[in-house]
Amino acid sequence: MLTVEEALNKILAGIEPLPTQTVPLREALGRTLAEDIAADIDLPPFDNSAVDGYAVRSQDIVGATEARPIALRTIADIHAGGLATERLSAGSAARIMTGAPLPTGADAVVMVEDTRQGPDQTVLITAESQREQHVRRAGEDVRRGGTVLRAGTRIRAAEVGLLATVGRTLVPVFRSATVAVVSTGDEVVEIVEGLAPRPGKIRNSNLYTLNALVREIGASVHSESHLPDDMAETITAFRAFSDPTHGADVIVTAGGVSVGDRDFIKPALEQLGTLELWRVAMKPGKPVAFGRIGRTLFFGLPGNPVSALVTFELFVRPALWRLSGIPLGQLARPEVLAMVTEPVSHTPGRREYVRAITTTNEGRFLTRPTGGQSSCNLHTLALANSLLIVPLDSPGLRMGNTATVLLL
Amino acid sequence: MLTVEEALNKILAGIEPLPTQTVPLREALGRTLAEDIAADIDLPPFDNSAVDGYAVRSQDIVGATEARPIALRTIADIHAGGLATERLSAGSAARIMTGAPLPTGADAVVMVEDTRQGPDQTVLITAESQREQHVRRAGEDVRRGGTVLRAGTRIRAAEVGLLATVGRTLVPVFRSATVAVVSTGDEVVEIVEGLAPRPGKIRNSNLYTLNALVREIGASVHSESHLPDDMAETITAFRAFSDPTHGADVIVTAGGVSVGDRDFIKPALEQLGTLELWRVAMKPGKPVAFGRIGRTLFFGLPGNPVSALVTFELFVRPALWRLSGIPLGQLARPEVLAMVTEPVSHTPGRREYVRAITTTNEGRFLTRPTGGQSSCNLHTLALANSLLIVPLDSPGLRMGNTATVLLL
Repeated sequence: MLTVEEALNKILAGIEPLPTQTVPLREALGRTLAEDIAADIDLPPFDNSAVDGYAVRSQDIVGATEARPIALRTIADIHAGGLATERLSAGSAARIMTGAPLPTGADAVVMVEDTRQGPDQTVLITAESQREQHVRRAGEDVRRGGTVLRAGTRIRAAEVGLLATVGRTLVPVFRSATVAVVSTGDEVVEIVEGLAPRPGKIRNSNLYTLNALVREIGASVHSESHLPDDMAETITAFRAFSDPTHGADVIVTAGGVSVGDRDFIKPALEQLGTLELWRVAMKPGKPVAFGRIGRTLFFGLPGNPVSALVTFELFVRPALWRLSGIPLGQLARPEVLAMVTEPVSHTPGRREYVRAITTTNEGRFLTRPTGGQSSCNLHTLALANSLLIVPLDSPGLRMGNTATVLLL
Repeated sequence: MLTVEEALNKILAGIEPLPTQTVPLREALGRTLAEDIAADIDLPPFDNSAVDGYAVRSQDIVGATEARPIALRTIADIHAGGLATERLSAGSAARIMTGAPLPTGADAVVMVEDTRQGPDQTVLITAESQREQHVRRAGEDVRRGGTVLRAGTRIRAAEVGLLATVGRTLVPVFRSATVAVVSTGDEVVEIVEGLAPRPGKIRNSNLYTLNALVREIGASVHSESHLPDDMAETITAFRAFSDPTHGADVIVTAGGVSVGDRDFIKPALEQLGTLELWRVAMKPGKPVAFGRIGRTLFFGLPGNPVSALVTFELFVRPALWRLSGIPLGQLARPEVLAMVTEPVSHTPGRREYVRAITTTNEGRFLTRPTGGQSSCNLHTLALANSLLIVPLDSPGLRMGNTATVLLL
């Protein structure tokens, strides 16, 4: 059996980002930049004031104090959006608003709080000022032509604002992956509000969970299907989902991936494409299949709801992010060290991901299991905000031990 | 001036969650549950097997080993989705698949790896088993009627799966807030791809940023508008955005909130509604207005792009989350203690939020500023993954100091 790292490396080694496309800026949120972005203008674009006040020549106000203010002639009133047409000469000042262009000759701005109205178009300056104080020079943040964002950057609100600032209303991004989500099993029935499943049957929660997982991480759902335990139907469906024209980028199934005589996922994958790995030394989730059918990636996840969710997080999420252009080094969730506050039992042999609540106390992380760790118990996963990692060969963790925790 | 905490408490004190509504389960992702959710059936719904193997009576196989296996008659083959109609009597076993119902009389399941095919419809058991081993009892995760999710829970993928498991395809959630986003200022011009703004003008990045911020945190955009520096137009627009029938739940403006003679946000708010707070002892972002017009909440943020983003994160985001039903105690972003690896200068008087990159190294957090902290420099915010908090009265931070960091 492969370790989790070996399996993930093997999966990611064969994945390249999808082709790029151009989207309007308003649709770029959550996507990944496909090209470096340069500033088309200086940022800020022109010398301007950082405060409301008076633009001055700093040498004119040396020694100004509240008790001995210095009077300057006000020769202009410059608003944001206006133009600074007058030139400051010795003894003059211009009233200026935040963001308004600095007049020629001025080398500092005095905040309005350090001024008083004087007689006859004058202003009394009550504090001296350093050169460049409250002045924002053109290009001081970024020079025209300088790179502001790198290819591979996930576009959040700050990136959206920065793209707008450099005039990019059309944004080059990687295409985001489409995923055919598939549940399997004769025991699984569609949910009808208000009706309990018949004896021996369980509700199809996996299709809803997979749909939510795909959307939550920014990919899109190609199709949702449930397959009975039937080889012919499984083959037909996988052919459609991997169709070169109408198929998905990725197929994700839940269930049917073990070795029972009604587990058709693995044989169907082997018949249509290639199985590249199967079985990982982890709990929950040992049976995990990865392979390809044509250009479509294939993930066969276990059918237990918790196993499906955890293996999606560990293997499918990084693969989908990689397809969407995120660099290899940025695919991991944050991991922290935390002190275990309740004992955690463990049978050596597989790395275990224990659903846990992790909190901070005076800057240190504390972690404890959320309860029953049966792989069908979604309740304890919903209560969790993290997965506590018990190493493969650990005999279990005691209170006070330090453990690595994956923050979700 | 209020501190950040005082301002936030004052804002949140007057906010109640919005009315509730019912949405289809597929649309519930990211919303907040408005009611406790109980299990309508036992979870799991019936006694079943956790593995592929043989259902047995544990007393029949005491002492079984690889060398001295115990033979049992195979009387049934139970698949997931099938029914267990046969009863196990002494010396008998039933082949059983993961998730299939446990037959009456069985009290354990032996994994298929601990069995061998025997002659004449028998199976050889090569390891003994504890009672209840690999058996999942009906209701062992959650009893019928037990609460599985609490009102106020944010619905992520695991919650979606759990709602499906208890048959809830219609989900009671809080309505999510609609936000009228507004940029202001005569200096601000619409972005035309390929065209640089005329002298003295800057591109309207704030409207894009606010739109992205609102959607990123799960609220929806009511409208997007740009207002010139004009009192009459500002009044007319705010009336429309706060219309009891067609208006928004929240108005968020950027710019025009200072005391210049062209800053119309505060006077317009005071004319139409009430100003409840203004100015917070923080940097970036001192001028922040909060108030109400009728039932519509009003946030006047500063116009500098970084100030707008940071004040949105600190004040508007918690308010929008509270409106969407998140409990008061769960509105904060995670804060950690980190070691400062580059000096941070600071002028006492306001709490400063410094754009920073925070990383982990051997379980400890390290943090450093991303560069120029001018409040119009979005570039250094886009590079950041966190905000390093410099206390109001701090003289600055030195290398090796410990600081609180807000993870974004």
